[in-house]
Order: sequence, then structure tokens, then C-alpha cells
Amino acid sequence: MKGDQLENWLNSRKKRKELYDPQKLFEGIRAGDRHALARGITLLESRRKEDAEAAAHLVRECLPFSGNSIRIGITGVPGVGKSTFIESFGLELIERKKKVAVLAIDPSSEKTGGSILGDKTRMEQLSLRKEAFIRPSPAGDSLGGVARKTRESIFLCEAAGFDAIIVETVGVGQSETSVHSMVDFFLLLMLSGAGDELQGIKRGIMEMADLLLVTKADGENEKTAEKARRTYQNALHLFPPNSNKWTAESMKVSAFRSEDMSAVWEKIDEFCKLTTENLSFSHNRKKQDLYWFRESLKEMILGHIYGMEGFQERMNELEAMLGAGQLSSFGAAEEMFKEFILKWRR
Amino acid sequence: MKGDQLENWLNSRKKRKELYDPQKLFEGIRAGDRHALARGITLLESRRKEDAEAAAHLVRECLPFSGNSIRIGITGVPGVGKSTFIESFGLELIERKKKVAVLAIDPSSEKTGGSILGDKTRMEQLSLRKEAFIRPSPAGDSLGGVARKTRESIFLCEAAGFDAIIVETVGVGQSETSVHSMVDFFLLLMLSGAGDELQGIKRGIMEMADLLLVTKADGENEKTAEKARRTYQNALHLFPPNSNKWTAESMKVSAFRSEDMSAVWEKIDEFCKLTTENLSFSHNRKKQDLYWFRESLKEMILGHIYGMEGFQERMNELEAMLGAGQLSSFGAAEEMFKEFILKWRR
Repeated sequence: MKGDQLENWLNSRKKRKELYDPQKLFEGIRAGDRHALARGITLLESRRKEDAEAAAHLVRECLPFSGNSIRIGITGVPGVGKSTFIESFGLELIERKKKVAVLAIDPSSEKTGGSILGDKTRMEQLSLRKEAFIRPSPAGDSLGGVARKTRESIFLCEAAGFDAIIVETVGVGQSETSVHSMVDFFLLLMLSGAGDELQGIKRGIMEMADLLLVTKADGENEKTAEKARRTYQNALHLFPPNSNKWTAESMKVSAFRSEDMSAVWEKIDEFCKLTTENLSFSHNRKKQDLYWFRESLKEMILGHIYGMEGFQERMNELEAMLGAGQLSSFGAAEEMFKEFILKWRR
Repeated sequence: MKGDQLENWLNSRKKRKELYDPQKLFEGIRAGDRHALARGITLLESRRKEDAEAAAHLVRECLPFSGNSIRIGITGVPGVGKSTFIESFGLELIERKKKVAVLAIDPSSEKTGGSILGDKTRMEQLSLRKEAFIRPSPAGDSLGGVARKTRESIFLCEAAGFDAIIVETVGVGQSETSVHSMVDFFLLLMLSGAGDELQGIKRGIMEMADLLLVTKADGENEKTAEKARRTYQNALHLFPPNSNKWTAESMKVSAFRSEDMSAVWEKIDEFCKLTTENLSFSHNRKKQDLYWFRESLKEMILGHIYGMEGFQERMNELEAMLGAGQLSSFGAAEEMFKEFILKWRR
């Protein structure tokens, strides 16, 4: 490198280091500086090794100031109207003097390379409000990675004073389970439609819902929406009750009616009151903490071991033998274990 | 040890070794010797280290002769009438020239120390038939352990010529998911009853069912049974379709009506024809093999690492810090990973 180049490079490094100084970011976040919050999340999302320590520092600082919010998960298949709903619902929350952060996980961006959420124009009005903060997360990483970033982004938003955190995900992949494990309240958005009630929603998702909303219940669509709502309501009755005593319900909503948005919030508020009173609100958060601790540890351990030299190749060989009926599943597992763990530990 | 004692001990060891010689057991099993089959399963269930190699040998030998059966999982809460159903259904299968093996997993025995299934008198008539083989499994082990034993017991039964394998489990614990992953067809037994449709069945189980049976549909109970059946039928419609193109249905049955048992078999037969034709039957079995391979390997690896000296103690410490908000979940996981994996690998 020539002198000039070197100096430029050193300068840019220095600038980056200042920009992402975790202590400064923390102070900015606490002071309500949205740019600091945005940069803080970028730091969490960074895959640079040298950023890991700074990110951990930032989370550690924010942690004591986190927790003071309602975390709402929202899912539904593409086309159900998530953005329209969130925009309208977010504005309703702002009316109610809440500060709203929207974290959107978009697993589809893994395939396209870019996020479908991309720009914030999806929620044009909401994004213009100073009480709102919208952050799309280009997934493009392991599910665990996304979960980690999103979960820690929640802490940052809370430390910045946001008291309603909306985590949005598309209800077709693996991410809903993971989102369900990081929110207090889980909203499932469904379309009404003749006979296509299933809409490719993943198995097991309906059971997670604390509230099921049939969207686009306006104009000609209102009747079908009510019919769909009733069908869902019957189905919800069949699920075993939640340990938190909350009974999931279904409502039909139009994002164009502010009284509907208000009714949704009333439901969530009711949920908060019930679960705060019976202590399941805080109990659930503690459970989630433990869950993520154990899951992350598992993922780190397995990721490390599966990445050992020759591990994948040997897996492939044994899977081929398994397919040919030359080995039992357990026999194959024992073989791998002997070859990779026992040898290594000796 | 004195001379006599030593001789006795050596003799009993020798006798045991002969009794559990895997090659002889294999030959006995292939010849249809039920005692050999029973001893073979005992060998699989043994926790003695010296038996592990023999058990693996036996499974390896039986494997090429396994697979030629329909594997049926049956679950339902206690009191739903599983034994009565299986007895009646088993006799129907024998009428149809099938050889029926019943493997019963009973997780509740973990707590009581003995199996509630204990004696075979539960299925008195069935157990007297030479075409039937009934084997209760006192769980008392990790779920993975039970799964392994049950799954390999299936292979042994198949090698012994049994062509209908029924795996029974109580639908309240963790075992159904695991049973679902080792059978071709999953039967869920439900009670009818005023309003108590849920009956403590675990979340997610209903979605696994290939056929839902409302039991005890006789006498005065028949009307309520039909009502319950219809409710379940509506709920089943709401689940997304299976990739194997099978549509789950609900039926009401009385174990005292052989035509009901016959109708259940017809359904299973229909399932077999459909899934054999569209290849999902064999595809599903291959998927299950891979699943158990990967799951078992995971369990072995994690079991090994979680058993490291000081691991649990440090987990407890970090979980306490987590509970006190001094650490984030991911921070705690990283700490464990550094302390136990990275150090150890250096």
C-alpha cells in the first residue's frame, strides 16, 4: 500500500471504530438517538470477527434497561396484508402514546439475495413518524443467527425507550417458531377465501396464535371474512388450553378501520393484564431466556462439531449406506460418534 | 470367591452368553421362535455395556429381513380404551391372516418404577393367539433410549415375520412425536364427551393423526360419539394437507363391533395403496431413517458433552446469572462454549 492509500485506510478504520464504539452507541441509544440504534443493530448483524466483542459489550450495557415493553410477533403468508396491518396498527399504538419498533425478519431474502422488505416504503406513513422505528432484517444467515440478532435487537430497542416491539415474519418457513419464542403475544394473520382456509400456513402455527385475525374484512369481502373467522374460532376451541389461562380468539379486521386496530390493541392489553396478574408474563420471559441459552449452546456445539474436517463427507457416506439398508440409523450414528468424538477426546 | 461360588458364577455367565448369543437369536427369530424374539428384545433393552456389541450384531443381521410390514402408531390419553381397541383390532388383523406384534411404550412407568402395562392380561385374548406377540416396554430411560429400543424392536419383529406392527404410546408425554417418526400410519384415539374434547391431549398431536377414532361409540354413547366425530372432522379440515396426499379422517368406533375394526383396517389399507402408488410410503421410511440417524448422533454428542466434568454445575451458575439479568442468553451460551469446547479442543 502506498502512503496515501494506507492513510486513507487507517482513517476509514478509525472512523468505523468511532462510529461503532459500543459505549458511545449505548449512550446514544439511551438518549433516544435513532441513528445510534440503527448502527447498534448493524453492529449486532455484523459478521466481522472484530465486531463480535463490541456487539457483546453493547448488549451487556443495554440489557439492564431492556424488558419494559410488550413484544408482539406477527406472522402470515405473503399477501395476507402484514405491512398494511402493521402500518395501521402501529399508527394506532402511536395514538395511544406508545413508541413502536418494527423488526422484520424476511427469510425469503436468503434466496433472492435482497430483502423483499428492502426499503421502508412499505409502511410509508409509519416510517415518517418519530415515534416509530422500522428495521428490516435481511436474513441470509442460519436461523439461529437471525434469532440471535432479532432477539438482541429487541433489547436495544427497549433500551432506546420503545415500548411496543413488533417482530414480523413470513408464516411459511421455520422462523415463526423462533419468533414465537421471543415474543409475549403472537398474532396470526389469515385470509378469508372460499375453501382455501389453509393457505399453505405451516403445521403447528395455528396452535401458537394468541389472536387470529382474518384480514381484509372490508367491502364485499366482509361476509366471507366473518365466515372464515367462525371456522377458525371453532378450530381454536379444539386446541388444549394454554398454561397462561389465555384463550385464543379470532377477529376479522380491516386495516382501514381504526376501531378494528383499537379492538386488537384492547385484546393485547387484556392479555397483558391477565398474564401480569397470574405471573405468566414474566414466567414466560424467563422460560424464553433459558430456552435461548440452551438452544444457542446446542447450536454452537453442534455447529463446531459438524464443521470438523471430514465430518460432512463421512456423514454423506454413512447416509448412502443407510439408504442402501446396510446400516441401521443408530448403528450409523454410533459409527460417527466413535470416529469423531471418542477418538478426538482420547 | 470360593471355588463353588466361582463355578456357579462362571456357569451362569456362560449360560447367559449362550442364551443371548446374537447369531443364535437371529436364527431363532428367523425361524419364528417367539422366545428368541423376546430375548432379542431384552438384549436390545439391556444397559450392560457387554451386551451393546451383541445387540448391534443382532440388529445388523435382522436388518436385511426387516421392512416388510405396516407399522401403525396408536396413541390416546389413559382411559380412551387403547388396550381394548388393540385387542379387538389385533384379532381382526389375525382374521385377515396377518401376524401382529404390539410394542407398548409406557412412559408413566418411569415414575412408578413398574409398568402399568406390566402383565399381558390387558389383552387377554390377543395374547393367547400364536399369531400375536405383545411386548410392553418399561420406559425408565431417556426418550432417545426408548425410541432406539422400540425402533430396533420393530426390525426384529419384522425379521420374525410379523407383518403388522402396532406401537402403542400414551398421548400425554413426549413419546408420540417420537413414535410418529417410526411408523407409517398414526392412529389417534379420542373420547367423546360433553365439552371436554381436549382431554389433555398434547398440542400438535392432532396434526399428526392419519386417522382419528372416537372410541366407545356404543349404547347410549353413540350419539355423543358421532357429535364429537363431526367436530374433529371439521378441525381436521383446517390442517394443511399432507405431502403424501392422504387426507386424515375421523371415525367413531366400538371395539365390540368387528365391522368397525374391519373399517379401520380398510382405511389403513387404502392409505397403504395410495402411498405405495405415489411412492411416499418408502420415501417416508427413508426420511425416518435419516431423521433417526441425525437425531441419535445429536443426542450422543450432546449427551457426551453435557456429561463433561463440571458442565452441569457451570450451567446452573450461568442460568442463575441469566435469571438475575446479568447476562443475555447468547452471552451465557458463548461463555459455556468458550469454557468447555474451545479450551478442550486446543
